[in-house]
Amino acid sequence: MIPTDRYVAQTTLYVRYAETDAMAVVHHASYIVYFEEGRSSYTRQRGRSYADLERGGFMLIVTEVNSRYHKPAVYDDRVTIHTWVSELRSRGLTFSYSIVNTETNDLLVSGSTKHLCVDRSGKVCPLPQDWREIGN
Amino acid sequence: MIPTDRYVAQTTLYVRYAETDAMAVVHHASYIVYFEEGRSSYTRQRGRSYADLERGGFMLIVTEVNSRYHKPAVYDDRVTIHTWVSELRSRGLTFSYSIVNTETNDLLVSGSTKHLCVDRSGKVCPLPQDWREIGN
Amino acid sequence: MIPTDRYVAQTTLYVRYAETDAMAVVHHASYIVYFEEGRSSYTRQRGRSYADLERGGFMLIVTEVNSRYHKPAVYDDRVTIHTWVSELRSRGLTFSYSIVNTETNDLLVSGSTKHLCVDRSGKVCPLPQDWREIGN
Amino acid sequence: MIPTDRYVAQTTLYVRYAETDAMAVVHHASYIVYFEEGRSSYTRQRGRSYADLERGGFMLIVTEVNSRYHKPAVYDDRVTIHTWVSELRSRGLTFSYSIVNTETNDLLVSGSTKHLCVDRSGKVCPLPQDWREIGN
Repeated sequence: MIPTDRYVAQTTLYVRYAETDAMAVVHHASYIVYFEEGRSSYTRQRGRSYADLERGGFMLIVTEVNSRYHKPAVYDDRVTIHTWVSELRSRGLTFSYSIVNTETNDLLVSGSTKHLCVDRSGKVCPLPQDWREIGN
Repeated sequence: MIPTDRYVAQTTLYVRYAETDAMAVVHHASYIVYFEEGRSSYTRQRGRSYADLERGGFMLIVTEVNSRYHKPAVYDDRVTIHTWVSELRSRGLTFSYSIVNTETNDLLVSGSTKHLCVDRSGKVCPLPQDWREIGN
Repeated sequence: MIPTDRYVAQTTLYVRYAETDAMAVVHHASYIVYFEEGRSSYTRQRGRSYADLERGGFMLIVTEVNSRYHKPAVYDDRVTIHTWVSELRSRGLTFSYSIVNTETNDLLVSGSTKHLCVDRSGKVCPLPQDWREIGN
Repeated sequence: MIPTDRYVAQTTLYVRYAETDAMAVVHHASYIVYFEEGRSSYTRQRGRSYADLERGGFMLIVTEVNSRYHKPAVYDDRVTIHTWVSELRSRGLTFSYSIVNTETNDLLVSGSTKHLCVDRSGKVCPLPQDWREIGN
């Protein structure tokens, strides 16, 4: 599932109490924020910070989120987000994610998010040159 | 897109400042919480509160979330969540959602969430009798 | 505790599942967002939307939050936020809050937030004219 | 401000996009979650995990939050939470926090949270023995 032919970022964090819900497990929407943390970390590890992209006048808007829940996590668990670029087009890209329990390596959540690049005026535009090979 | 052959719950709320992000629009994960608010409201409107389901010893766990983003919303916008049951099986169901700007009726986000019914021991089990016709 | 000599906004909402935590009660940080919802509602009820204030080039930044927790709320509870202006100065104001269970009227949380008015350059400045009597 | 006569935990994290708001800075309620992360980290560093406390049948409920905002943080900033025990009583304790920008060391937010120890029945009770010297 996790690809071996391209860069895969690993990001490990502790589950916060605020991220749990009354079922005593991590709320499903919190994983969408973990995905975001995974791709922030991915771009940092690849030397292209998303903050810099925005400072350059571009934004990656989210156009789609898909998420499947396999096993729960609880407060204080360590989880590792595996993040990679599963599709790269001229004007956008797709990140895929595999979140596992860091100790047991059990798969908790898998998913993907699609993004389009827009400029300051909000128009869809090509990804900046230095982002074109971010998936490798 | 919104079906006409079954019950569709409408839930209107104001966008909270905390739900926006540095792009000055509603953060994509906030809509996942709007979906949840849509189905909480759906079950209340249909006379079966989800809180009662849990008090009865059952839970509807989330197994899948899919979401597509069409247009942004900003702070103080009124948005209306249309919620309906798009699939009903013996041991689970799928809710679908269409979130629109209440004033303009522009489609903002569409999506669905899949759920399985589990009992106190965490075992998948049939939906309680009074939930079997919740989609009509 | 709730004053009788000035306007007090009442805002009622249902507790969302996402706002609860593993103790099965509303997470303490969620009430800070309820405070925000209380003052958004307050300004709407008083005919001065905070969104309009920002469109006019001003922001009310938060400089202080104080919150005391008396009783818990759970998922699906209806809670009512009472909001009023407890102090109004030329360049800022303090909102106070009393959050109660809508059915029982039990006090859940009380608190206050302090705000300063800043202009587009980030400089502290006087509140716009039409906000000077917002507390009455 | 940060004490030198007791243990002070340092916890460094990156600001998440989801934690920002339409002012393009970290939302004031997000810092309350940073406080929580600070004390989770504190207890881990001191060898008494809060998760273990709950497994042992006790909870530390939050009875008060106080927070002062000095300077903003933005997405991708690294922030360091300094956390210490500022008061320790038989049945509760107070944590204090100083959140700084990790690069500049500028003070962003300072605050405190008060907690009471309760048992499974919800009754206030003495802190477990191994938590009595957690502040040193």
